[in-house]
Amino acid sequence: MQHVEHIGIAVKNLAASIPLFEKLFNTKCYKTELVENENVNTAFLRGGGTKIELLESTDPEGTLARFIEKKGEGIHHIAFEVIDIEDEMQRLKKEGFILLNEKPKAGADNKLICFLHPKQTNGVLIELCMERK
Amino acid sequence: MQHVEHIGIAVKNLAASIPLFEKLFNTKCYKTELVENENVNTAFLRGGGTKIELLESTDPEGTLARFIEKKGEGIHHIAFEVIDIEDEMQRLKKEGFILLNEKPKAGADNKLICFLHPKQTNGVLIELCMERK
Repeated sequence: MQHVEHIGIAVKNLAASIPLFEKLFNTKCYKTELVENENVNTAFLRGGGTKIELLESTDPEGTLARFIEKKGEGIHHIAFEVIDIEDEMQRLKKEGFILLNEKPKAGADNKLICFLHPKQTNGVLIELCMERK
Repeated sequence: MQHVEHIGIAVKNLAASIPLFEKLFNTKCYKTELVENENVNTAFLRGGGTKIELLESTDPEGTLARFIEKKGEGIHHIAFEVIDIEDEMQRLKKEGFILLNEKPKAGADNKLICFLHPKQTNGVLIELCMERK
């Protein structure tokens, strides 16, 4: 894993959270994107040298909505950029980690992504991501 | 805020979590430290280009133990390095954020730190930190 590509933050109301995080990080949101296959609306800022992805559920029964119901708003996942996502998925599988998808799938911001099951990573939801070529 | 200085992860059992995160990040833990004033045992790894701080409570009634009880193990806070912690505390205070300590205090790994109240940051616990001179 190369570096933290972004930090994903689960919010209830994207329109309210964008100005809040703009103030916090003293910067402006530069992009919003609907990720239909994940049922989330996203907004991006560069805060503290890192990409921050705010996530709002578009589906009251979806996994993000259930996360917020269970744990409240807050940090949802950490995404690490990898050089070769399939290689890293293989390495982690051999180490006994569970991948939430067997093949890399399309994520926001032109990425191929894979999540690890948080039950084996002390509750931390980790995303691997790689720029799509 | 300059960059993500570390990501803090709340764990129940540090001895069990260290080898798990070593496997995850394909690296070795390089330091452990008891932070007495925070009632936490910490362990540090460099994972995915970033410092990872594993945190275990030494006090069953402490704030970290209560966090785990309420939300489960997982990402506890994100720490951002700042150039001048008092300046940044002033800026955030003026923006209406609540600081959990009025003066910078001693943190792990030779830092001066300040936390922001998560109720005003959509549940995200944010730490400002600056190397002690």
